[in-house]
Amino acid sequence: MPLTEKTLIAAIRRQARSGSSVVAGIGDDSAVLRVPRGHLALLTTDFSLEGIHFRRQWHPPESVGHRCLTRGLSDIAAMGGTPIAAFLSLALPRGLSPDWVAGFMHGLLKLAARFKVTLAGGDTAESSAGILADIVVLGSVPRGKAVLRSSARPGDRICVSGELGASSATLHCMMAQPRRRLNPREYSCHFFPQPRLALGRYLREHNLASSMIDLSDGLSTDLAHICEESGVGAEVHAAQIPLASFGRPPRKVSLEQALHGGEDYELLFTVPPGRKVPGRIAASPITPIGQITRGKRVVLTDPTGKGRELSPQGWEHFRK
Amino acid sequence: MPLTEKTLIAAIRRQARSGSSVVAGIGDDSAVLRVPRGHLALLTTDFSLEGIHFRRQWHPPESVGHRCLTRGLSDIAAMGGTPIAAFLSLALPRGLSPDWVAGFMHGLLKLAARFKVTLAGGDTAESSAGILADIVVLGSVPRGKAVLRSSARPGDRICVSGELGASSATLHCMMAQPRRRLNPREYSCHFFPQPRLALGRYLREHNLASSMIDLSDGLSTDLAHICEESGVGAEVHAAQIPLASFGRPPRKVSLEQALHGGEDYELLFTVPPGRKVPGRIAASPITPIGQITRGKRVVLTDPTGKGRELSPQGWEHFRK
Repeated sequence: MPLTEKTLIAAIRRQARSGSSVVAGIGDDSAVLRVPRGHLALLTTDFSLEGIHFRRQWHPPESVGHRCLTRGLSDIAAMGGTPIAAFLSLALPRGLSPDWVAGFMHGLLKLAARFKVTLAGGDTAESSAGILADIVVLGSVPRGKAVLRSSARPGDRICVSGELGASSATLHCMMAQPRRRLNPREYSCHFFPQPRLALGRYLREHNLASSMIDLSDGLSTDLAHICEESGVGAEVHAAQIPLASFGRPPRKVSLEQALHGGEDYELLFTVPPGRKVPGRIAASPITPIGQITRGKRVVLTDPTGKGRELSPQGWEHFRK
Repeated sequence: MPLTEKTLIAAIRRQARSGSSVVAGIGDDSAVLRVPRGHLALLTTDFSLEGIHFRRQWHPPESVGHRCLTRGLSDIAAMGGTPIAAFLSLALPRGLSPDWVAGFMHGLLKLAARFKVTLAGGDTAESSAGILADIVVLGSVPRGKAVLRSSARPGDRICVSGELGASSATLHCMMAQPRRRLNPREYSCHFFPQPRLALGRYLREHNLASSMIDLSDGLSTDLAHICEESGVGAEVHAAQIPLASFGRPPRKVSLEQALHGGEDYELLFTVPPGRKVPGRIAASPITPIGQITRGKRVVLTDPTGKGRELSPQGWEHFRK
């Protein structure tokens, strides 16, 4: 049976559930959703485009579906929010195997189930070139409690969760040996990154983060976003950056990969002076890597104290 | 200057406003939005893909931007809702003229301003083929008041707003003479369709509509959606269907175009027995075209009373 819009909608519909916050989902002009009393709505949209964000010969469909939803959930995590529902717009080229779509939906829905997020709608179309997905996540946060990028202050410590660089290092492996198939389970930081929702919520509930962003574009770029939005500078200590291990046998990423590699989906946040941060929150190790400064410069210092400008060189996705 | 993601984001950012319902918009991981107290959230997403939903040689960029947002606003209208904010995910091929993007944004933002909808976020990417837009509209409706597709009952009258078929008839003109450039102002039903927000809200506020849908796929398909979701049948009187006039000099569309042509963005709704419907609401003429019946059949009757099955043959977009 060819994969038409109708069969795709039917497939999504079978797999989508309604939840307590979803009053009406797929099957009407709009979804109808309940935002908890006293909460504000959070909304984020993220593309996952074949050739730009993934390649079919490298990424199994389960990974593409998982990564697609992770992009949205991670944005909600970075606000200290809780996801309510996801919406998937999916355009598929004619002749794409139904197995590919089933794998994609399996990866996406497995992650959605883990975080109790309902797939509540979306759109489908035929694509004239490549697979195009756009994920929308609606979430909520108690009024006045969203953790923004714009509220870092001089003197705040800068912290990151987890270890950095593994996703980008894995991508470089594939680019260097395009015909080698990596085992996704051995390179799970790249193929199945985890959105840090529990961590983001903990930081918000304990008023620990003065500002926060998720590491989707790379530390150098995402820290620059915080500095720009907050009108501050930063000093980062190279020796304190947690370098990830990746692959089998495990090897360490380079400092450059940890500084500029994207798609780790860890959280980068700032902590006001005098607040104590646990070394581990919601199963994630937390590492202080520097502090917010006056001025606009972002500086990377080596152990001798010598500094150099850290300019944003983050992830702008690989090109065809 | 080449059109990079950064310049596009900057352009959107300059043009996007924050409004009273938008606490934080572009520039953070998620937008933060206020849903009015006592309201539920409405959310809808719609693709506008080059080659599927529009063609660059036929549709001026202002029209593409306008139609893109109309798709989302019309879905909110069909629930009886009020739009709060829009989110635009836009992927552009390398080398696309900045003028095209400026025209697209102008068309979209002009319509947004007319309905006081804030553009509050989105995503940008490079596309490997063609222009890809996905519009998300967040709206709201008082709790328990959303007008669904699933609540039509036997005996309800079926009504439509406006006149049908002009958008599809215009498209057929262009397909028949692909090199002819139509003047968008003379074929505004196709190039600049209007979402019926005031009408949708009036029907909801006056409890006049037992069910509602917007006519995006064509009357035969959209009526089938109402019947399917409500578990009912319908009888439509061919002679009562309001056939649109279109073009210069104006000519009438055929009955087939009015029955099956998509993208009119008028509203199709059902009215419980005994409720009087004004002949004109919010500047739209309202025409009763039939009634909801028991069973599952959708029948089209001619003036002699003879009926034939009306099967869904709606719009599935033109192919490349």
